[in-house]
Amino acid sequence: MFNKRIKVKQLLASEQTGHEVTVMGWVRTFRNNQFLAVNDGSTNNNIQIVLELGQFDDALLKRLTTSASVKVTGEVVPSMGKGQKIEIKAKTLEILGDSDAEKYPLQLKNRPSLEYLREIAHMRFRTNTFGAVFRVRHSLAFAIHKFFNEKGFVYLHTPIITASDAEGAGEMFRVTSLPFDGTPRNEDGSVNFKEDFFGKSTNLTVSGQLEGELGATAFGEIYTFGPTFRAENSNTARHLAEFWMIEPEMAFSDLEDNMNLAEEFIKYIIQHAMDNNREDLEFLAQRLAEEEKQKPQAERSEMGLIEKLEFVLNNNFERITYTEAIDILLQSPAYKKKKFQYEVKWGIDMQSEHERYLVEKHFKKPVIVTNYPKDIKAFYMRLNEDGKTVAAMDILAPGIGEIVGGSQREERLENLEARMKEMHVPADELWWYLDTRRFGTVPHAGFGLGFERMVLFVTGMTNIRDVIAFPRTPKTAEF
Amino acid sequence: MFNKRIKVKQLLASEQTGHEVTVMGWVRTFRNNQFLAVNDGSTNNNIQIVLELGQFDDALLKRLTTSASVKVTGEVVPSMGKGQKIEIKAKTLEILGDSDAEKYPLQLKNRPSLEYLREIAHMRFRTNTFGAVFRVRHSLAFAIHKFFNEKGFVYLHTPIITASDAEGAGEMFRVTSLPFDGTPRNEDGSVNFKEDFFGKSTNLTVSGQLEGELGATAFGEIYTFGPTFRAENSNTARHLAEFWMIEPEMAFSDLEDNMNLAEEFIKYIIQHAMDNNREDLEFLAQRLAEEEKQKPQAERSEMGLIEKLEFVLNNNFERITYTEAIDILLQSPAYKKKKFQYEVKWGIDMQSEHERYLVEKHFKKPVIVTNYPKDIKAFYMRLNEDGKTVAAMDILAPGIGEIVGGSQREERLENLEARMKEMHVPADELWWYLDTRRFGTVPHAGFGLGFERMVLFVTGMTNIRDVIAFPRTPKTAEF
Repeated sequence: MFNKRIKVKQLLASEQTGHEVTVMGWVRTFRNNQFLAVNDGSTNNNIQIVLELGQFDDALLKRLTTSASVKVTGEVVPSMGKGQKIEIKAKTLEILGDSDAEKYPLQLKNRPSLEYLREIAHMRFRTNTFGAVFRVRHSLAFAIHKFFNEKGFVYLHTPIITASDAEGAGEMFRVTSLPFDGTPRNEDGSVNFKEDFFGKSTNLTVSGQLEGELGATAFGEIYTFGPTFRAENSNTARHLAEFWMIEPEMAFSDLEDNMNLAEEFIKYIIQHAMDNNREDLEFLAQRLAEEEKQKPQAERSEMGLIEKLEFVLNNNFERITYTEAIDILLQSPAYKKKKFQYEVKWGIDMQSEHERYLVEKHFKKPVIVTNYPKDIKAFYMRLNEDGKTVAAMDILAPGIGEIVGGSQREERLENLEARMKEMHVPADELWWYLDTRRFGTVPHAGFGLGFERMVLFVTGMTNIRDVIAFPRTPKTAEF
Repeated sequence: MFNKRIKVKQLLASEQTGHEVTVMGWVRTFRNNQFLAVNDGSTNNNIQIVLELGQFDDALLKRLTTSASVKVTGEVVPSMGKGQKIEIKAKTLEILGDSDAEKYPLQLKNRPSLEYLREIAHMRFRTNTFGAVFRVRHSLAFAIHKFFNEKGFVYLHTPIITASDAEGAGEMFRVTSLPFDGTPRNEDGSVNFKEDFFGKSTNLTVSGQLEGELGATAFGEIYTFGPTFRAENSNTARHLAEFWMIEPEMAFSDLEDNMNLAEEFIKYIIQHAMDNNREDLEFLAQRLAEEEKQKPQAERSEMGLIEKLEFVLNNNFERITYTEAIDILLQSPAYKKKKFQYEVKWGIDMQSEHERYLVEKHFKKPVIVTNYPKDIKAFYMRLNEDGKTVAAMDILAPGIGEIVGGSQREERLENLEARMKEMHVPADELWWYLDTRRFGTVPHAGFGLGFERMVLFVTGMTNIRDVIAFPRTPKTAEF
């Protein structure tokens, strides 16, 4: 058994002294041949190891380079130095693995840029920034499961490979076992997908919602949390080709229930991170503040990261209809001064500049916009009595834009079939979906939350590539 | 707001009477124009609704068919009937959605076979069997996150789409945006994958382990829980083309730490299901007992489902080396009577019949087999001092076979490079993996648990297609 160690996080939290411990980790710094800062990834805080002068031979000390791995046993003693209450007086010191300082790609002294760190994403976990980001990401993921488990939602794994391309949420990746050379063909020359692995043409899922509805109309309430995909050539700081999505779906629920759940959910997971990752969030707040200093005054955020999260926790989300949102935009100084690049009128699919105006300038808080024109929304959204809007809701967050998209679903078979026909959604492919409306249909609703956008919001990072371990974007699938 | 209801599970648990409640759910049975059994998916138990004779008109009563959805308000009163302590005296009864009894595909009275239910997987959640299976599945998934969160492991989302095909764990599905007609070609006629979405040839992941090791060598301990894929034409009751896998990876750990963690982990999640899903497990135990009655005496299990789970919780897993396992097989009556179909000798990759003998006949409990011949294991497993075995471990479970595969990883750069060369694993594609051995390498270990096999084990189901919502197998990708 090798692993008889105490984690640094636990050691620092206890503040106990006088006993002997073993820690293992990677060298962050080594000063004056005496003070060794060791990090084990459990926290950004290092444990200071004090070596007595002459205690270890020079050949060993020379090997204590950045990212060398060590095993240290010694007594925990009160620290005289600044920044830590305890330290370890080394008794034994073993180097587990060397790290050639000349070749090590992560020279922290040079303050490597986020862009450079993306190129060495296999090593960036060893920086304070990414240590904090991925511990917060973990914490949010756990909070999501905890929230739904407490409420009695069933976690449903909806399929990743799907033959259904009916939802039309975006371009899809093909999944295939067929070769490009000597592809099996039908007599008319088209590809014979009967020869493919699944006996038909298959893709990577863009959403688990339709299958989620099958679960909700049996278990009452379900959620998904899995990867989804878009084969869209969007090279922006907010788009990924592969990302994780959470999609709860609730039977016996209408649009208001849906909004209430989404708001409670977002606050719950932020609160969980605030309670469990305070140090990491404070580090990220500091990082963001420094980044903001580089910006012109006018572009800086009014609130720091912690302040922003507390504000979200302590205030109700603004709830307005799409029609009200358009009115606000039309009345805005920005509109009157012709500052919007895109047209504003009832019926438009609001652009990022419009959403940002509502959220960042007008309300200065998260906004839930409801009841969008049916023509810009999906076929499964419930038609309102006005005949021209649907019971949709989008949640817009400051700095991020759309973070949640949801709706009450159209539970009336005739309406659903009519909408599918109008929008050329093939009813025969979705016979199973329609069956939920044929046999004991119920009012139901649900939403999707893009997990990485949520992590962006909570960590204050600005590029979505920096909150997922190994980002997949056009022309990039490294590691 | 529509959703002001009490869930049936909560209602039955409270046993309180005298107050008014609203329940919503689907009709399971309606007897004597008076007793309505409603299920809302929170539990297999129905709430009995009592309608007074004459209280509702006949036209309404006729619509109370199986799977019609209803909203009922009434007083909770003590029940005179058998099987429930409380029932609801209906005050109002609303049918939310009808269910045409002639067309409804799930006639429970006919005891539909599991095979038939796979064809209507969108409806099978509404049966007691699948209700229980998927609530237990949920519970196991939650327990997995809870276990690792408590231990300070970071949940890492490793990539689903990957350009790396180095692990060689099995055949892979291609992920592509290239067309089959007019595929871009290089001058030599080969496919020009530079034109593909990611600028190279990409596949669906077979394992997140290699990326997991990148996380473990920074955070100390990580785990993955995500979908993995095999494009293998295996049409068996134990194989899926798409399945979920859990892969913890721990720095500063050896093979023994790895075994200890795996055993603790398996017991923890089973205990969680026993504590939280007792009713569902009892239902499944009953189902299994009935299924077993159809079998000849000799093929029946010695233990019932609950007994089996308790046995696993209360006994240490047997730990033997591969060499000991082969010796046991060679000494066995089965071998001497030539009952094994496949050859037994040191160096073989044990077949299912051998594993089952060890687990079900010889030890009658889960067995951890360690230190396999290097030639039948992956390149990344740590070479033992004997030069011919590696520090691998497989956990074999009764009735399931291999449920966990793991190893201590080869942390020594020279050894790893030599093994990769021997096994023709391209080192240049895995430069990032080798970097973890170049910069502060540490002893580390990890394992993979096939989630569906674990669900099979805990639920007592016998076909893996019955424990995942929408199974993907050769020629099948429905829903």
